[in-house]
Amino acid sequence: MKSWIVTELSERIWINANIATLDPGVDAPYGALLDQALTVRDGRIVSLVPMADLPAIPDSAEVVDARGGWITPGLIDAHTHLVFAGNRAREFEQRLLGVSYEQIARDGGGILSTVRETRAASVEQLVALALPRITALMKEGVTQVEIKSGYGLDPVSELKMLRAARRLGECLPVRVATSLLAAHALPPEYADNSDRYIEVICREMIPAAVEEGLADAVDVFCETIAFSPQQCERVFRAAAEYGLGIRAHVEQLSNLHGAELAAGYGAWSVDHLEWLDEAGVKALAASGTVATLLPGAFYCLRETRLPPIDLLRKYGVPMALATDLNPGTSPLASLRLAMHMGCTLFRLTPQEALAGVTCNAAQALGQGDELGRIGVGMRADMVLWDIEHPAELACQFGVNPVRQRIVGGEVCNV
Amino acid sequence: MKSWIVTELSERIWINANIATLDPGVDAPYGALLDQALTVRDGRIVSLVPMADLPAIPDSAEVVDARGGWITPGLIDAHTHLVFAGNRAREFEQRLLGVSYEQIARDGGGILSTVRETRAASVEQLVALALPRITALMKEGVTQVEIKSGYGLDPVSELKMLRAARRLGECLPVRVATSLLAAHALPPEYADNSDRYIEVICREMIPAAVEEGLADAVDVFCETIAFSPQQCERVFRAAAEYGLGIRAHVEQLSNLHGAELAAGYGAWSVDHLEWLDEAGVKALAASGTVATLLPGAFYCLRETRLPPIDLLRKYGVPMALATDLNPGTSPLASLRLAMHMGCTLFRLTPQEALAGVTCNAAQALGQGDELGRIGVGMRADMVLWDIEHPAELACQFGVNPVRQRIVGGEVCNV
Ligand SMILES: [Zn+2]
Ligand SMILES: [Zn+2]
Repeated sequence: MKSWIVTELSERIWINANIATLDPGVDAPYGALLDQALTVRDGRIVSLVPMADLPAIPDSAEVVDARGGWITPGLIDAHTHLVFAGNRAREFEQRLLGVSYEQIARDGGGILSTVRETRAASVEQLVALALPRITALMKEGVTQVEIKSGYGLDPVSELKMLRAARRLGECLPVRVATSLLAAHALPPEYADNSDRYIEVICREMIPAAVEEGLADAVDVFCETIAFSPQQCERVFRAAAEYGLGIRAHVEQLSNLHGAELAAGYGAWSVDHLEWLDEAGVKALAASGTVATLLPGAFYCLRETRLPPIDLLRKYGVPMALATDLNPGTSPLASLRLAMHMGCTLFRLTPQEALAGVTCNAAQALGQGDELGRIGVGMRADMVLWDIEHPAELACQFGVNPVRQRIVGGEVCNV
Repeated sequence: MKSWIVTELSERIWINANIATLDPGVDAPYGALLDQALTVRDGRIVSLVPMADLPAIPDSAEVVDARGGWITPGLIDAHTHLVFAGNRAREFEQRLLGVSYEQIARDGGGILSTVRETRAASVEQLVALALPRITALMKEGVTQVEIKSGYGLDPVSELKMLRAARRLGECLPVRVATSLLAAHALPPEYADNSDRYIEVICREMIPAAVEEGLADAVDVFCETIAFSPQQCERVFRAAAEYGLGIRAHVEQLSNLHGAELAAGYGAWSVDHLEWLDEAGVKALAASGTVATLLPGAFYCLRETRLPPIDLLRKYGVPMALATDLNPGTSPLASLRLAMHMGCTLFRLTPQEALAGVTCNAAQALGQGDELGRIGVGMRADMVLWDIEHPAELACQFGVNPVRQRIVGGEVCNV
């Protein structure tokens, strides 16, 4: 149990609450149950009953009157690159002033500038730099964040990034899931030998990350400008051997059939998916893999090709929504904005957007049995919102209606 | 002087500050001056000198060490509809569930639902409902907000909206500029007689608003689905007669040449402008009218036709950027997001985006001589930011780097 959770023997009861359970077993939009009492003990939900059925409240229990507000599962950002050093604002500016990507790369910009700065930073510096980013997410109601490595690109630096991610989860009231994304870009040291770099990932980085308990999953960037399906498959095999979850950036810029490949290895999630085709969708449905959509990157890159939302719906593939928070293609530290963009740009419904940052996001992190829904036995990660209807969470932006952010049953200050 | 400004005889000095003056007289991007000392007395900037030239600081002065942070003019949101009642989240949801606009209107939705709720609300209720919206803007560094009426559509309700707007400016440390936008939509009472409604605006509403000092400007929605250029011209004439500023929603959905018309009346600002043509741009340049761009509405409506940014640049028309914060087509309470969208969707440079929410926004409110730039004699509305470069304000989103928001020289808590 994390140090910031104060263990209490007594119960905490939220009364007069409307609950968006996101439980498919509840036959109402959002799995909504009105006017409920929700009891938490030892970090888990132990009872959820209509107010009319609430037994006498024990003296030892702490009561929170929700006064008709809504409780949802805590929001989960299932895809971020929020640990990094350096600042690419000048590069953003140069692009708008007409400087080409090629010129920026020649001047040392782009992802390799982030790699340079991240390699040079200490764990402590990476934690300090990431703090305002993760705090911004938490203020919006986020209770769990996935954080990827991928700007170190060598064994020491990749593990350092994961250590910084773990440290954030230890210091702050937020759950952190980590992914080793060493196969993010080819490091300059291996410019002519990407297969050798894949070997380093499989033989050195994965075992070392597992040894130290630093990674929950591996991730890869399967794309013509990154790594081939064959190379990604080697990473998946090594991950499977070591019992890590599998995630993959696929079908963002072209269709290499990375989704099918990842699905074949039982991936938790495949992400981006603008070029995913029907065969890929079917493969995801068969493997129970989540499709994680990243509208912030779509918006920042001014893409025009949408992910195949209708096909994903047709085959019942769960869709998650995440920020893709990163210094280059999605410098957007707001999961609520990702929800708004999911609806506005991808035409998700507000219910799909909320499921995308709760139950489906939890499934994308391999934790769908414990998190992402409100129900007896689930971990008590929740948000109490000052809203009249859960559709507001996706419809409006800028005003923050969080009244309480609750992690493991504890009401958090941030 | 507003009640929340505590008059002090002494000076306040910000030292070790980088200043983005936005002063065209300073020959550097952003009008930047590095390592400065900025002195404020009686709400105005009285001195701006390099640290090396700073004379001895008097004992009576309060010193703020900016520690190398950046000071910009306070942000100005020059186009909002943030006073309203009602909640249109369900309508947003219905549209995404496939219900047509026509059906939603038949069911009593759309702008007329906002009108119904706004008419039914008291001034106090409107203030309470607007409070989280304006506070969200202020937290991001906004020191001045324009607020329009336009959901009352009768003399009593329109004046009530303006009273609520004025009240917000009295209660909070933020400057509020008001616009009487009675010509926003045709009220049901005048469904068959829009000319008669225009007459009510000119003969009753404008005189009454002026009598009570409730309006700084008039605004109109010049569009096929709203009011004709001839009707808008009648409003402009009445406004000119009463000494009010002129603003107009024009060329959003079609080109009715509303911009040229408004320019002919010396309008402070014309807004939206997706269909503006070269003749219109020339007219704005000749009249010194600001082009106010609203990328949030463009994004929410998924428009594809961009305002003629290159022509506006070519003819030197100042461009402002604003949220258009409203319950229907731009429920986005974030001026920083409008800056990000201005760059990402409209391809403004970060410097243009910052000018769009400072000097050009001030000019759009007829206050360019007093606000929107950092210089001796200007009002001391400023933000001290924890950033390395002003480009970050447009490049990044979600993390809020405001260290101090300063209105009239006073450091504000919100
Ligand atoms: Zn990513
Ligand atoms: Zn407007």
